[in-house]
Amino acid sequence: MRVAVVGATGAVGRELVKVLEARRFPLSELRLYASPRSAGETIPFCGEAIPLEVLPEGPLPADIVLASAGGGLSKRHAPAWVAGGSVVIDNSSAFRYDPEVPLVVPEVNAEAARQHQGIIANPNCTTAILAVALWPLHQAFKAQRVIVSTYQAASGAGAKGMQELLDETHKVLHGQAAAAQVFPHPLAFNVLPHIDAFQENGYTREEMKVVWETRKIFGDPELKISVTAVRVPTLRTHAEAVTVEFARPVTPESARAVLEAAPGVRVVDDPERRAYPMPLTATGRWEVEVGRIRKSLVLENGLDFFVAGDQLLKGAALNAVQIAELLL
Amino acid sequence: MRVAVVGATGAVGRELVKVLEARRFPLSELRLYASPRSAGETIPFCGEAIPLEVLPEGPLPADIVLASAGGGLSKRHAPAWVAGGSVVIDNSSAFRYDPEVPLVVPEVNAEAARQHQGIIANPNCTTAILAVALWPLHQAFKAQRVIVSTYQAASGAGAKGMQELLDETHKVLHGQAAAAQVFPHPLAFNVLPHIDAFQENGYTREEMKVVWETRKIFGDPELKISVTAVRVPTLRTHAEAVTVEFARPVTPESARAVLEAAPGVRVVDDPERRAYPMPLTATGRWEVEVGRIRKSLVLENGLDFFVAGDQLLKGAALNAVQIAELLL
Repeated sequence: MRVAVVGATGAVGRELVKVLEARRFPLSELRLYASPRSAGETIPFCGEAIPLEVLPEGPLPADIVLASAGGGLSKRHAPAWVAGGSVVIDNSSAFRYDPEVPLVVPEVNAEAARQHQGIIANPNCTTAILAVALWPLHQAFKAQRVIVSTYQAASGAGAKGMQELLDETHKVLHGQAAAAQVFPHPLAFNVLPHIDAFQENGYTREEMKVVWETRKIFGDPELKISVTAVRVPTLRTHAEAVTVEFARPVTPESARAVLEAAPGVRVVDDPERRAYPMPLTATGRWEVEVGRIRKSLVLENGLDFFVAGDQLLKGAALNAVQIAELLL
Repeated sequence: MRVAVVGATGAVGRELVKVLEARRFPLSELRLYASPRSAGETIPFCGEAIPLEVLPEGPLPADIVLASAGGGLSKRHAPAWVAGGSVVIDNSSAFRYDPEVPLVVPEVNAEAARQHQGIIANPNCTTAILAVALWPLHQAFKAQRVIVSTYQAASGAGAKGMQELLDETHKVLHGQAAAAQVFPHPLAFNVLPHIDAFQENGYTREEMKVVWETRKIFGDPELKISVTAVRVPTLRTHAEAVTVEFARPVTPESARAVLEAAPGVRVVDDPERRAYPMPLTATGRWEVEVGRIRKSLVLENGLDFFVAGDQLLKGAALNAVQIAELLL
């Protein structure tokens, strides 16, 4: 299986290479594409130094293209990649809402991947992390209404977002003013209730992505879901406070039992030992941490819980490689 | 009017002195009490240097005692202060749930302050900030169910919490491990879904404080409210994502009109100009910022909004001084 990574020097691209190695993805050849300014550099993979190539026009010599270089680039190049015989697993939002394109979280709707017509979309990071925890509960108790508040890391804006947070933080500690370029305002010691563009209904596109994508992945267009997406000064793991109203009776104990048996989930829920999901512990992990599971004080058959998942892994690179594994 | 500040060197204590000066509180004498290790030091007030005194046993020479030195100290000393003729405005949780003690946010229930029997309690910071924004909406549209996720600053744990966040951040930037002492885990570049002790129902005491106190302040023991309280790496302003279901029809426009006329509220809700509540802009302000006002996607007559309020001001010192002003 020949694999190409497009956008290999980005925050997600670098994780894609590491995840392919860590999961021993059975590839015969790995090609890495980046912008011309990276030409001549290499990235380590299984003891080799793989050269970074400039992305050519037209098809790529690959069975699977893992694309993570922005929606514009994917839209422009994907048709030629598909025409050349590649299956494209796209990390951008370019194709996610196309009814012909499967949108896949393997723990939820692996079978959808097999109906692809050349392109499979990888969901938004917040959606993927939520879906892993919510899906087993939805199957067991049927979610009716979902309310989510997010605590999203700088990595959602890529390597440059992470660097901006580090630079700003350094400046603030030294009494200098932080000037934002990647984010709409300084993020160091701040929180920003603004990710992606505002829509006519007052929600941001990031918030609506979770609504649109969760419905598509779950195959449940009626699911009611609302989100407040907030950027916080963490580096690479998203957390989410989730409130769900279910159709069927649920207890924290029955929910915990369901989650403990669920793939991709790590239940971290032992408050007495100060164990609950946190970026500090979820960073670098393949599983999504779920904890703080408790009965809602306001909703009938309601549950509150907290999740933390590595935005660059389950929120991006890991999910894409898991989709590639479905194609083997 | 003779005023005493107990706990004058704490994060809230220092703000109390500044707020008394900034609001030109008509005091004839200011006495500042702190622990013995501060003896000999002074704090500036209206161009004077006020000496820090060691807190004596027994009554204080003050008409109003603003106490912010922890619940244990308040419980031990308040009876003697009251017996000596002082009115005690207490910032701890020691007396908040005592039915004889008014719990006051002046924008909401100023009249309750006048029924005091010597002690008036200042609410939890998250509660006070929420109450200022929620009360006018509750009066206009009758809140039925309230769901809150918080983004709480290090200052909620006092000056030592703020210092720990700064020290940890410095260490992380220099590649060193951060070891938490004030917080249950390192807070730098992390979020902690754990503030105060866990209760039997799985909620933390911080979360339940908002439930208990909002009901008491609003005089509405039936109000349904649920909270996820999360510490984030900011210094002194709490933010909150709030979802409310009202009994009566509500639109973002009607809610905005109500909030624009409400005391203590500053509507910051112009997404096109990137204007919304943030710690960066709410820090140092007396008003609570409210924005991101939009129709809920999941609740009938529902509204989502975001608030940011300075934890040390409206969440503590400012509210206490406003209560003192009611006694003039």
